[in-house]
Amino acid sequence: MRARVYVTLRNGVLDPQGEAVRHALGTLGFAGVQGVRQGKLIDLTLSATDPKAAEAEVAQMCEKLLANTVIEDYRIEVLAE
Amino acid sequence: MRARVYVTLRNGVLDPQGEAVRHALGTLGFAGVQGVRQGKLIDLTLSATDPKAAEAEVAQMCEKLLANTVIEDYRIEVLAE
Repeated sequence: MRARVYVTLRNGVLDPQGEAVRHALGTLGFAGVQGVRQGKLIDLTLSATDPKAAEAEVAQMCEKLLANTVIEDYRIEVLAE
Repeated sequence: MRARVYVTLRNGVLDPQGEAVRHALGTLGFAGVQGVRQGKLIDLTLSATDPKAAEAEVAQMCEKLLANTVIEDYRIEVLAE
C-alpha cells in the first residue's frame, strides 16, 4: 500500500526558503511571482493492507516525525493499490 | 492565480533523505515502512491571469530553478481562482 503526505507551513508562518526562491526567480527574470511557499511531499510504501489502518499509522508518523505540528499542517492521501 | 508544483526524484535515483526518514520511523517503532521518497511541494502566487500562460511560465521556472531536471521530475497544477 502507498500513501502520500503533503506537509505545508501554516498560514502566517514566515517561509524564508520560499522568500529565497521568490527572490531567485525574480533575478532570473520571472517578474510575476508574488509569493512562494515551499513544503514537503513524502511518498511512503507500507506493508499495511487496510487503508484505514494505514492512514491512522501515517497520521502517527506525521505527529511524531514527518511534520512539525507547531508550524506545519499535513494531509494524508492513501493510494489504493 | 495560484500554481502548485510537485517535484519528485526520478525512479531509480537513490534518496538518502528518504532512507534516513525510513530508518528514523523504524526506530520510533513503525515497522511496516518499506520505502520513503521525499520530494518538494512549491506553492506559487502569480500575477498572471491566463492559466495557459501561467503554466508555461511555471514550466520555465521548473526548468531553470525549481527542479533539477537531471534527477527530478516535476508536475504543475494551475489552480483556478
